[in-house]
Amino acid sequence: MEKELQSLLRGIEGADRAAMDAARRYQAQLAKPPGSLGKLESAAVRLSGITGKVHNEIEKCRVIVLCADNGIVEEGIGSAPRGVTAAQAVNMTRGWTGMSSIARAFSDDVQVVDVGIADAYDCPEILNCRIAPGTKNFLLEPAMTREETLRAVLTGAELARQAMEDGISAVGVGEMGIGNTTTSAAVLCALTGLAPERVTGRGGGITDEAFIRKKEVVRAGLERRMPDGGDPIDVLSKVGGLDLAAMCGVFLGAARYRLPAVIDGFISAVAALCAARLCPAAADCLFPSHASYEIGYAAAIGELGLEPWLLLDMRLGEGSGCPLAFRLLQAACAFTNGMATFEKAAIDDDYLQPIRGKDCFSV
Amino acid sequence: MEKELQSLLRGIEGADRAAMDAARRYQAQLAKPPGSLGKLESAAVRLSGITGKVHNEIEKCRVIVLCADNGIVEEGIGSAPRGVTAAQAVNMTRGWTGMSSIARAFSDDVQVVDVGIADAYDCPEILNCRIAPGTKNFLLEPAMTREETLRAVLTGAELARQAMEDGISAVGVGEMGIGNTTTSAAVLCALTGLAPERVTGRGGGITDEAFIRKKEVVRAGLERRMPDGGDPIDVLSKVGGLDLAAMCGVFLGAARYRLPAVIDGFISAVAALCAARLCPAAADCLFPSHASYEIGYAAAIGELGLEPWLLLDMRLGEGSGCPLAFRLLQAACAFTNGMATFEKAAIDDDYLQPIRGKDCFSV
Repeated sequence: MEKELQSLLRGIEGADRAAMDAARRYQAQLAKPPGSLGKLESAAVRLSGITGKVHNEIEKCRVIVLCADNGIVEEGIGSAPRGVTAAQAVNMTRGWTGMSSIARAFSDDVQVVDVGIADAYDCPEILNCRIAPGTKNFLLEPAMTREETLRAVLTGAELARQAMEDGISAVGVGEMGIGNTTTSAAVLCALTGLAPERVTGRGGGITDEAFIRKKEVVRAGLERRMPDGGDPIDVLSKVGGLDLAAMCGVFLGAARYRLPAVIDGFISAVAALCAARLCPAAADCLFPSHASYEIGYAAAIGELGLEPWLLLDMRLGEGSGCPLAFRLLQAACAFTNGMATFEKAAIDDDYLQPIRGKDCFSV
Repeated sequence: MEKELQSLLRGIEGADRAAMDAARRYQAQLAKPPGSLGKLESAAVRLSGITGKVHNEIEKCRVIVLCADNGIVEEGIGSAPRGVTAAQAVNMTRGWTGMSSIARAFSDDVQVVDVGIADAYDCPEILNCRIAPGTKNFLLEPAMTREETLRAVLTGAELARQAMEDGISAVGVGEMGIGNTTTSAAVLCALTGLAPERVTGRGGGITDEAFIRKKEVVRAGLERRMPDGGDPIDVLSKVGGLDLAAMCGVFLGAARYRLPAVIDGFISAVAALCAARLCPAAADCLFPSHASYEIGYAAAIGELGLEPWLLLDMRLGEGSGCPLAFRLLQAACAFTNGMATFEKAAIDDDYLQPIRGKDCFSV
């Protein structure tokens, strides 16, 4: 398993800098003030870095939803009982949840994957990649073995490979797993050294008592498990979850198979950070979506050097920001492919002055 | 003309509060933590206030682009020569500009309207509602007569009525007019009392010299023309533009004919503020899109009590934020129409706690 992971990481080449330069040169010819489409311009350039082409299309998109249970819910830190993981995974396949109803409206694929659901359900539409029926309570023992963690990561990477083979243009990475804002907070602390209070929020919504307990659990779990912050696999296995590990794997696989990968909220950003720590070049495939209301999001996305595109105070999870960000990627392609150059538009660009100060065009 | 305006304003009824309450009650039954879809939830509730229905669909959308020249460009404050207004208006009809290429990708209508282009062009696709061949230089004389201003406002309202009759679900309000960040800054100062330095930016991009001149021009124009900040028509006629006045009219017409109306960037937000000052109930139809990079945007949108949805550092104008915001309105409808209730989803909502502190659900 360690070998397979190393092989995956070695296969990640990172952005095609020559294609990005070509994209920047092309953008400079388009009839608009330089940088005036802001982050849509940098998104277009980054897409070129992934595909190697100046002109791209974002056609079929897929939200990959990694579902798993977390043993830490025994500590009373969840906003809902464990069974909601299975129930909502099933509901997602029907288009009944927040993310899936939005994805359906835009004809995006939703792939619901069981990497560790604890409860039974009857739903053949869920892809069964279950590695274990949930993790252990990380306050008492490591959440899972290193072997299980590696299997989850490689499962995620395989899902990205499938997406590439299915002709998907962009993937989004979502999750369903009661307790996973707790595991995400613990993982983020281990990777960054931030204090639990800085990154532990109320998740789906919990009582004041449960919130105090949640922060204690993160702190005590880190003290007892002592994950090695320099080894994301160790961190994921000791205080993480099967959902987080598999999400990390989707991001790595997207980088390996050259697919743009959209980060959703807090949990997704923490998984992306694990991927970027395992292989910095993997960050070249990452795109933000919305600024989650969950307190730890800002730290996670900031560590990735990204800024969110959407400010909607959302905190639903599931991958609900992904169908929104797919539309922005489509917009980035649309203006690149559709706009006239200064020459075609019959506009003299001598007048236009670059705007100094804050740099709009930051790639 | 004054009579027609008063009749238009009297016809604006504002939001249907009972429908909004019904929408809130319905949202509370949906299987998600309360408020977890943030501003998409409040957008759905506000749509209900406009249509009177809990369940809505955003189907065909239209960006209405008001194009006009501004006499103030004689002062050397523009980022491009005057002729670019006509050239880009023509290019918009071809889908060659930033906004129009994005709108085309999403099958949104683009309606390009000449309310005051100074230069000649040959393009039957532009709707000719020209009131004058541009305004006067407001440093030397009022930009236009009160009569012209009223005609521009009523023209805009008529465009909204047409959109309603054409079965459009939502309109976006864009513009093309070299010099219109200068007029917008002057109008915003007159309406709010803010200092010109606070709201005057570099627009499409100008030299340091031109930027200094631009701020002087706004300050001197306000001193010489002395617009009455309590009378938006007076402000628009003395230091505004035909584009701004017509945009204000589209917002008023949208409120009158019960259509959601999306604000683009700085110029669009100033026009929306004129509409809200003429008739506070008109604000009930307004939706934000992106946070423009142009410095005055924050003040204008803040006066409207709105927060932007998208943080993309864009400053292109044209209505380029509108096709992006239309997708968010569609997402708001999608989750409202698609999500299961707690009962249907077989989830017990007793566990879920509302999140206190910052209120996500602020409508």
